[in-house]
Amino acid sequence: MSGPADAPIGVFDSGIGGLTVVRELLQQMPEEGIVYFGDTARVPYGTKSADTVTRFSRENALFLERMRVKFLIVACNSASALALPTLQREFRIPMIGVIEPGARAAAAATRNGRIGVIGTQATIGSRAYDAAIHKIDDKLEVVGKACPLFVPLAEEGWVEGEVAESVARTYLAEVLDHGIDTLILGCTHYPLLKDTLQRVVGDDVTLVDTAVETITEVQTRLVDSGLRRGGTGSGEPDLGESNRGEPGRGEHAYYVSDVPGQFRQVGERFLGHGLEPLVWVDQNDLPWYERGASR
Amino acid sequence: MSGPADAPIGVFDSGIGGLTVVRELLQQMPEEGIVYFGDTARVPYGTKSADTVTRFSRENALFLERMRVKFLIVACNSASALALPTLQREFRIPMIGVIEPGARAAAAATRNGRIGVIGTQATIGSRAYDAAIHKIDDKLEVVGKACPLFVPLAEEGWVEGEVAESVARTYLAEVLDHGIDTLILGCTHYPLLKDTLQRVVGDDVTLVDTAVETITEVQTRLVDSGLRRGGTGSGEPDLGESNRGEPGRGEHAYYVSDVPGQFRQVGERFLGHGLEPLVWVDQNDLPWYERGASR
Repeated sequence: MSGPADAPIGVFDSGIGGLTVVRELLQQMPEEGIVYFGDTARVPYGTKSADTVTRFSRENALFLERMRVKFLIVACNSASALALPTLQREFRIPMIGVIEPGARAAAAATRNGRIGVIGTQATIGSRAYDAAIHKIDDKLEVVGKACPLFVPLAEEGWVEGEVAESVARTYLAEVLDHGIDTLILGCTHYPLLKDTLQRVVGDDVTLVDTAVETITEVQTRLVDSGLRRGGTGSGEPDLGESNRGEPGRGEHAYYVSDVPGQFRQVGERFLGHGLEPLVWVDQNDLPWYERGASR
Repeated sequence: MSGPADAPIGVFDSGIGGLTVVRELLQQMPEEGIVYFGDTARVPYGTKSADTVTRFSRENALFLERMRVKFLIVACNSASALALPTLQREFRIPMIGVIEPGARAAAAATRNGRIGVIGTQATIGSRAYDAAIHKIDDKLEVVGKACPLFVPLAEEGWVEGEVAESVARTYLAEVLDHGIDTLILGCTHYPLLKDTLQRVVGDDVTLVDTAVETITEVQTRLVDSGLRRGGTGSGEPDLGESNRGEPGRGEHAYYVSDVPGQFRQVGERFLGHGLEPLVWVDQNDLPWYERGASR
């Protein structure tokens, strides 16, 4: 028999970036089931307004709610920065974004009290990291910098080499001038550029990957609320369509709003294994239609 | 009294790039009214699938159809490449894309018969320029190259300097190896990078800006079909909301699917004058809702 703890964890992102969070989830809690939704038809979110990002995020959460997830991870920094409070008000599912765990990790890591944050225009413009860090310690100094070219660079696969270095040097000069010793990678794409970023900022600056911190926090919250799926073979996550993995490993399903060609290619290279089942969800099947009609 | 020729011309694009076409339209036919729709909530199209770009394009055309435009310009290369035949089948409004005019101009410009095309992944992957050029002359050699970083570079405003040059050199090396003498800028954003591109390809290569050719063709088709608006003060275009320009100048209205902040800023700098009225169209007001419900 399967109980509430056997339900899958829902993860959504504007596209492929949230797979950095899935990779960490697989590493820390391989026995959990996962339903991933990537809004590849409307990616990116980081260049769009709070209203639009909130509307899209609501629709994504609604989709995962219908998939009966037990917990929701907003794996997109822009959505976490702009839409999380609204989602927390509107939905009953326990949920987490990536901002607060990242802020906590950075506050713990800094020695000189100066933290840099890089992210999309939406994330940096929201000053959500600043607020989260100052809630922990208001004496910490935070300097943010929007780096809109990092996402297309990562998606183009230009994560090393002349162009990547030149872009990184241009963006990071200002942040480095503030003498930071800790840099939050405030976008799920940025870990792909980690080597180049570390080279540009130097070894004395600690890079904070919010995925690691987020999943550690998810694990704590699942355990505390009795929702952690118990080890080996304790039941099947409640997934309509799902892969059948080895016993004791969670089942996974991946949904995307655009045809999955490129998502599969980049995603598989990225996660290091197959993305199955990978389902294209046509807009007509997505729940915002119903919402629109009923309002 | 206003007749069919007084109706406005509809222009849509995935976002802001189509304003290069509007600028040319203003130059060649200042007395025409314009309704522009930029799908800024779902931009870009060039990284998305044919199915998704066709769906979005249909919704945009439907919106402009309701605005009673007399002629439709698909100002987005990706939408022209992937969705134009479908739109031509489904809609009665006379319409044009940017691919065929660009192909004709390039075929006329080349001396050595070798033409390069740069554009988004969607446009280059569709081989729409190749097909259009070969319809004119199948002995012409066409070499295409997708340049996904040019759009974010243009939107970031990095149109000159070290990064832009380095990206352009990387992308264009392959095309230049083919000994082309003509290069089609197959994306409405690329004219913003014109100076850098010209420097990289050298003065012997002719750059073809499809906006210029497209508007010339629109003018011919309007005249031929008796839909060209006649000179000074012959009536008011049939726009619900519109600016009141000087007599003899067409009225304009701009609609966007995301909150217009950045669109206004970049667009005004780009067009060299105000974008008024500029209206944010919420998805609930967009016609795809009705379509979805009625199907």
